[in-house]
Amino acid sequence: MVWKKSIGKKNKKIIWQRIVMTEKEKKLWGGRFQEKAASILERIGESVSFDHKLYKEDIQGSIAHAKMLKQIGILNEEELSKIESSLAQIRKELEEGKLEFKSELEDIHMHIEFRLTELIGETGKKLHTARSRNDQVAQDVRLYILNQGKEILRSVVNLRFSLFEKAKRSVDVIIPGYTHLQVAQPIRASQYLLSWFWALERDQEFFRFALKASDELALGGGAMAGVNYPTDREFLKKELGLSKVSPNSMDGVSSRDHILEFLFACTQLMIHASRICEDIILYSSQEFGILKLPDSLTTGSSIMPQKKNPDIAELIRGKAGRVIGNLNHLLVMLKGLPSTYNRDLQEDKLALFDSIETVQISLEGIREMIEGWVWVPEKAESSLKNGFATATDLADFLVGEKKIPFRTAHELVGTLVGVCVEQKKTLFDLPESDRISISEHFTGKEYEDAVSLSLSADKKISYGGTSKKRQEEQLKIALESLKEVETLFL
Amino acid sequence: MVWKKSIGKKNKKIIWQRIVMTEKEKKLWGGRFQEKAASILERIGESVSFDHKLYKEDIQGSIAHAKMLKQIGILNEEELSKIESSLAQIRKELEEGKLEFKSELEDIHMHIEFRLTELIGETGKKLHTARSRNDQVAQDVRLYILNQGKEILRSVVNLRFSLFEKAKRSVDVIIPGYTHLQVAQPIRASQYLLSWFWALERDQEFFRFALKASDELALGGGAMAGVNYPTDREFLKKELGLSKVSPNSMDGVSSRDHILEFLFACTQLMIHASRICEDIILYSSQEFGILKLPDSLTTGSSIMPQKKNPDIAELIRGKAGRVIGNLNHLLVMLKGLPSTYNRDLQEDKLALFDSIETVQISLEGIREMIEGWVWVPEKAESSLKNGFATATDLADFLVGEKKIPFRTAHELVGTLVGVCVEQKKTLFDLPESDRISISEHFTGKEYEDAVSLSLSADKKISYGGTSKKRQEEQLKIALESLKEVETLFL
Amino acid sequence: MVWKKSIGKKNKKIIWQRIVMTEKEKKLWGGRFQEKAASILERIGESVSFDHKLYKEDIQGSIAHAKMLKQIGILNEEELSKIESSLAQIRKELEEGKLEFKSELEDIHMHIEFRLTELIGETGKKLHTARSRNDQVAQDVRLYILNQGKEILRSVVNLRFSLFEKAKRSVDVIIPGYTHLQVAQPIRASQYLLSWFWALERDQEFFRFALKASDELALGGGAMAGVNYPTDREFLKKELGLSKVSPNSMDGVSSRDHILEFLFACTQLMIHASRICEDIILYSSQEFGILKLPDSLTTGSSIMPQKKNPDIAELIRGKAGRVIGNLNHLLVMLKGLPSTYNRDLQEDKLALFDSIETVQISLEGIREMIEGWVWVPEKAESSLKNGFATATDLADFLVGEKKIPFRTAHELVGTLVGVCVEQKKTLFDLPESDRISISEHFTGKEYEDAVSLSLSADKKISYGGTSKKRQEEQLKIALESLKEVETLFL
Amino acid sequence: MVWKKSIGKKNKKIIWQRIVMTEKEKKLWGGRFQEKAASILERIGESVSFDHKLYKEDIQGSIAHAKMLKQIGILNEEELSKIESSLAQIRKELEEGKLEFKSELEDIHMHIEFRLTELIGETGKKLHTARSRNDQVAQDVRLYILNQGKEILRSVVNLRFSLFEKAKRSVDVIIPGYTHLQVAQPIRASQYLLSWFWALERDQEFFRFALKASDELALGGGAMAGVNYPTDREFLKKELGLSKVSPNSMDGVSSRDHILEFLFACTQLMIHASRICEDIILYSSQEFGILKLPDSLTTGSSIMPQKKNPDIAELIRGKAGRVIGNLNHLLVMLKGLPSTYNRDLQEDKLALFDSIETVQISLEGIREMIEGWVWVPEKAESSLKNGFATATDLADFLVGEKKIPFRTAHELVGTLVGVCVEQKKTLFDLPESDRISISEHFTGKEYEDAVSLSLSADKKISYGGTSKKRQEEQLKIALESLKEVETLFL
Repeated sequence: MVWKKSIGKKNKKIIWQRIVMTEKEKKLWGGRFQEKAASILERIGESVSFDHKLYKEDIQGSIAHAKMLKQIGILNEEELSKIESSLAQIRKELEEGKLEFKSELEDIHMHIEFRLTELIGETGKKLHTARSRNDQVAQDVRLYILNQGKEILRSVVNLRFSLFEKAKRSVDVIIPGYTHLQVAQPIRASQYLLSWFWALERDQEFFRFALKASDELALGGGAMAGVNYPTDREFLKKELGLSKVSPNSMDGVSSRDHILEFLFACTQLMIHASRICEDIILYSSQEFGILKLPDSLTTGSSIMPQKKNPDIAELIRGKAGRVIGNLNHLLVMLKGLPSTYNRDLQEDKLALFDSIETVQISLEGIREMIEGWVWVPEKAESSLKNGFATATDLADFLVGEKKIPFRTAHELVGTLVGVCVEQKKTLFDLPESDRISISEHFTGKEYEDAVSLSLSADKKISYGGTSKKRQEEQLKIALESLKEVETLFL
Repeated sequence: MVWKKSIGKKNKKIIWQRIVMTEKEKKLWGGRFQEKAASILERIGESVSFDHKLYKEDIQGSIAHAKMLKQIGILNEEELSKIESSLAQIRKELEEGKLEFKSELEDIHMHIEFRLTELIGETGKKLHTARSRNDQVAQDVRLYILNQGKEILRSVVNLRFSLFEKAKRSVDVIIPGYTHLQVAQPIRASQYLLSWFWALERDQEFFRFALKASDELALGGGAMAGVNYPTDREFLKKELGLSKVSPNSMDGVSSRDHILEFLFACTQLMIHASRICEDIILYSSQEFGILKLPDSLTTGSSIMPQKKNPDIAELIRGKAGRVIGNLNHLLVMLKGLPSTYNRDLQEDKLALFDSIETVQISLEGIREMIEGWVWVPEKAESSLKNGFATATDLADFLVGEKKIPFRTAHELVGTLVGVCVEQKKTLFDLPESDRISISEHFTGKEYEDAVSLSLSADKKISYGGTSKKRQEEQLKIALESLKEVETLFL
Repeated sequence: MVWKKSIGKKNKKIIWQRIVMTEKEKKLWGGRFQEKAASILERIGESVSFDHKLYKEDIQGSIAHAKMLKQIGILNEEELSKIESSLAQIRKELEEGKLEFKSELEDIHMHIEFRLTELIGETGKKLHTARSRNDQVAQDVRLYILNQGKEILRSVVNLRFSLFEKAKRSVDVIIPGYTHLQVAQPIRASQYLLSWFWALERDQEFFRFALKASDELALGGGAMAGVNYPTDREFLKKELGLSKVSPNSMDGVSSRDHILEFLFACTQLMIHASRICEDIILYSSQEFGILKLPDSLTTGSSIMPQKKNPDIAELIRGKAGRVIGNLNHLLVMLKGLPSTYNRDLQEDKLALFDSIETVQISLEGIREMIEGWVWVPEKAESSLKNGFATATDLADFLVGEKKIPFRTAHELVGTLVGVCVEQKKTLFDLPESDRISISEHFTGKEYEDAVSLSLSADKKISYGGTSKKRQEEQLKIALESLKEVETLFL
Repeated sequence: MVWKKSIGKKNKKIIWQRIVMTEKEKKLWGGRFQEKAASILERIGESVSFDHKLYKEDIQGSIAHAKMLKQIGILNEEELSKIESSLAQIRKELEEGKLEFKSELEDIHMHIEFRLTELIGETGKKLHTARSRNDQVAQDVRLYILNQGKEILRSVVNLRFSLFEKAKRSVDVIIPGYTHLQVAQPIRASQYLLSWFWALERDQEFFRFALKASDELALGGGAMAGVNYPTDREFLKKELGLSKVSPNSMDGVSSRDHILEFLFACTQLMIHASRICEDIILYSSQEFGILKLPDSLTTGSSIMPQKKNPDIAELIRGKAGRVIGNLNHLLVMLKGLPSTYNRDLQEDKLALFDSIETVQISLEGIREMIEGWVWVPEKAESSLKNGFATATDLADFLVGEKKIPFRTAHELVGTLVGVCVEQKKTLFDLPESDRISISEHFTGKEYEDAVSLSLSADKKISYGGTSKKRQEEQLKIALESLKEVETLFL
């Protein structure tokens, strides 16, 4: 991207610009800022350095508005045609980087309007009839959120699909389930993966709900009181593909709930992301070692081939902080703000743009890690055995099958585990002679079954549990849930 | 409430207790803490000082669980009957403050279980079959949120009703609409009130959505992997009046999304509340003075009868900070937490309880202020006049009716306003002779209509705008929206 | 504590009370709330349910104020004497729980003043001469922070002492140093412990700095403009043991920087605490296993004696969220607030009280864990060996001693590690024959020294590094730092 | 700035870049990113798009490190000389935009090292001896904070100077002091201005304190355990002009307290800024109207010359949200992070850079507003009169001078005010006859003096109060405080 911004000769002050671009975007935004002296008002007030990202939505909104103006007789056919073709040209100019940004033209809206007037004179000025920058930007951001939100939804569903696929291939992998970061119970790896599948389903539904606040027509609200024209807002709504007309012009122009709810959706998603990444960092550590990340997703050491730093997972865990910071940015900005438009709101877009980008790259990173990692069942097994993860199952067996009183059963198993610890053995390799000396039931296939890791998992037969049958059932439900989504919005 | 907590003799350390009670509750919770030495583990780990609030939901969950255990043959008819009547008795004891809290029994779940075993011996212990504290508390909190959420929804709807009623009575009051806290345009007071009506509708819908995350059966998830019993989760779901069974036991036990979403709903609501209160503080200040709060809702000075401090509005504005703080509490707590239960989660309830109380008293406070305030139309009028709020309307009149070019029209009106400012007059009291000397059109009824405050409002004819017709239309739509809610959940 | 709060008969609303008490305090606060109808204003506005904690400081401030009033001739000797003895009595009544709280008397200041007037009539009323509730509460909170801050400082120094003592005993324990949660380099356990010793030194210095904002006389600022009396503020300053008189009455009454800075000090401390606890949770997990917490500080399972849940560490890690939430509470409350006193400020104390308690119990918990844990050197050793933590040292040896080119050295060691991984061996147990087949230098004492864990640590000879010499040096510096503190403020 | 970043052909994903530049910087950073396929690891992991801002400090640190390496015999004279001149050249290349950024070289450190090796081969590689990227970046950021912190300190002092100058010229302006946003007491405008002068002094001292955490040598800490070389850290300390050597390599490399404390300093400053701006927005509103901002600092309307939107103040108030968001970003990122370096930390710089820029432009904006605004004493006077701001003074007069009992005095003044309100008069224009009919003392010069606004101010004679004498005293103290600062660090 070629980027130049007008700053006065004597001015040493620094101006903020946060820019997010793909390579393609960068080519598009090749324009240069015209240089000119900029006062503090101009420097602190300009927003084109970030709100240029709204150019597509701004032009989309303007074309709809022009059509409506023709509809109610303010523009004639020819004027509309001129406006439409010129806006198309401006869009092209912007995408080819041929439009210079000037901080004295403040924002993307004024840049487009100014260029339009250059191209078609007074007709261009007519476009702003029955419109204010207040309702214009309120609409642009809503359209932008809808567009970006759909992309995020796609990524969420992609990740859910990856989780599903991985789970399908992991039903027979037994790993430790942890509570308090202590080995608790044997679980099927599919269940672990599906636990995030369902968390992400909530995120998906949350985004879908949050987007409703953006799926609303704000245009026609004017500066805040409505406009002096018989604006056909139903027409605008249809033209922009929206579901609802904002019923109150003050609310439509003043509210930032659509950003707030969207940022919270991003935050909840990143909380999940940070927890998945924490698991990955732990599980891929040498000490836990129950999964291995592929080389392409870690950084390592030429000299220590076994060393793999889970950088992607760490970065995403860290990025959760950024998205929470962005939510706070907006919350603090909005708290106690008087009614309707205040200039404080100008920078609401910074938090929004940043969170969108962060969420997207985080979803991609997690998906690649999930698709790429390899389970290490032998490490999982040794953790489970060293953790006596089935000692409780053994006690249950004594109570259930051998009708030994609960307390006695516990005492017997406690003694057995104590002997194992003392001899640095597990329930699986303590000599049978030692076992029998504690209880006559600690022998044979019955004993083996009682302490078996996979059988333990299969005893969890309640719906949603980790038994193989329940896992297969869950996979079916998960697949249905994915299919449903497909028909809904993909 | 009589409250005593066991603290060791030598122990000088302070323990945290946050207690929220109505007078009724206080009587109920009259029990005394039994005194006994408490280690750091006991003191830092106890939660009964706050989670006792879950007692009703805990007993509700236990009764459902007991019925299910009977269903699958683990309890017999008699045992179930004993458990049910004893739990009813314990509930009564708790409500009458007859059950002592002991920090060594840690939490409300163990208090109830312990008491049950005191009452009916081994049968009491059977209740915990096929259940873990992890799924038990996950369920209790979900039930609690559902119960409290319904109360909050009721309050939100009550407030919306008050806004609607007030708006109905305020259609003919013209007040200044502000942008940048500068007088912008004349608006009907009904529109101002309805702008918050619609913001609160979003809150209402948000709460309804957020409650779905709680409307789920977590019981049956066990410690996290499911349980070794054929728990009938569909039965439990119906028994507890829930809509959905959590499809993954790890997710059901580990997720706190139901709290997170609820806390965000509270936060968005309090952002709205803080903005309403900011408006009230401003509008009731001597300088703005467009509304008067009743004495019963302000604090004043015996010596200066006109002085009214809007304490309630200030307190609520401040309380927004607390609810945002609570949201952050949970976000930080959850970020980067490894899978399933970690003890960090114990205090998730503190943020929840605090936010519920704060939201409820804030909604009540705002409702009373809205019902109680009185508009001061003469102050509103003088602000609008001093703010030349209809100068633009006058220019529009020149352009539209007199076909004067836009630039000329603006120049003429600019001159007129300049003369007014110089002579400390408004568009309404500048002598006609002065007006005519600027433009021949600045005369007669045409001029008066062009600058009229209420006619200006009535020119805002777009849907959602401030014209009387649109306001009446809005009131109808608002009423329908209230009726719809009534049938839905009240 | 016996706690009753006046709530009207018809009033069903819930009032917030957060109460923090030691057993001693509970006895003191045995008073009962008198019952009476409470309006929304009374219920939302009362603060005695939490600000009663300021009673000591309020009485301390009042006595100083009374002495000053005598000094400037407003009270005579006898009146002062009456006031002093009555305030002492009231203090005793409060501590014995004999003073009833009434929500219509709003706050602790009014309770004390009201009681004083009951006791000594008009003379009591004179005490409020030349004082406003605004400067009174501003002073009380500053005194409270100073008192509590000193207690926290003491706990921080105690914890630093424990870290020092533990470090002294851990110099010869070699543990893995982690980066990216991957085994990186062998370090002496003393260095790990001292790394927190120095972080806590920053906390100590931060608290000392933050307390300066509280160490200031606000009394005499009146409502905000100063008072109509020749208040002798230097006298008050000395009487209250403060260092500075606030130079501007508006700032003195309006600023909450003293709370803000204190809350941030708490936050930074809890960030450190959360990181220490994360380490403890990881290191005491079965998989890492390099330290063992004592039974008294963990919760376990009767059946699995090796299982130890690090609940205290988890709770403290979670509590960091609460303290960050409290900081946000205040930040949001203060942001954009107009000059001087606004009622929003009333609840600033809630965040403060909560953070103080949380910090204190967290410091205690960490200290007990540090004093109690036992290193498990054999686990540390096997992690280091499995992590090839000294492979780089071996390459350095080839380069430094054997003058083998860097790239070749790396290649040789890379091959060696590769063979180890393949044969599931470490650098320590791979047969010499295999080693020699890769490089003739991989043999004998030279090789052993090159891969030795403790020698690796001892190669880190830069100041602050992990070599034994540097560790002993660090311990001396640490001891000096503790001695310095002793003379400064303990 | 010409900015190109390598993105793979097939890769549609968006990469985050936040760029902050002056026009001068933009020219410097004219280099182009070389295009090449970038994996997710490369895209999520690159930081040169933001950490290029550290180039000066990185080169400064490298030169010091090279000198030290010569000192301890690792580099010879000639090698040092080559490194120094090449680093100078690289710095020039960077400043002239001639160095291409490549995302596969990740960060600014590797770009500089890579270029150095291009220029001088193996000698370039020697520079990294006894250094790790962990201690290198830890040092760079500390140096950066020190440099930027000094600039901010300069701006804070400049703003304090402007406040002082404005206060000096405002001693005789009487404005309303507000509490609860209600007119409370007459104050001298100088006092209002100095109240922020002192708040900013706390910010100044806080920044000075916070910078100490950065004023420390981290270099020599290596990856975390120290380095295998006799690094002369005292030499490095002196060479970099620092005050202290970090005593523990793990802490030096791992801690982010220097960023945290700095971000909090920025936050507290922005809280003050937001409150000043809130005051400006209120006071410059038409309704309050006690100050007028110059046209150059507001946006207006061609048609309504009296309309002035205080955009700068609104933007700064909003920016407070961003800086608080940045603090939260770091807090969440750090909470619960295991010991020493984790990749999460990479983005700590984003929050830092953003806050620095925001603080700087906000300080500039506020300074310009303060220097530019004009008081409107007549509006201030009418607010005070309409607010009966001296009614209390009148009662005090009755009590003090006329020995009328307190209650009676209050009653008389209350009656008087009541009559005024009824007749829409103030204490100043109510006919004397009406006054006398209430009390014989409400007459003559005595009465006039008792209700006089400026005399009321002058009755606030306590130190720090609003009386003229105290104001003049305060101005002297303020001047001394400025002079002291001058000698300290400017």
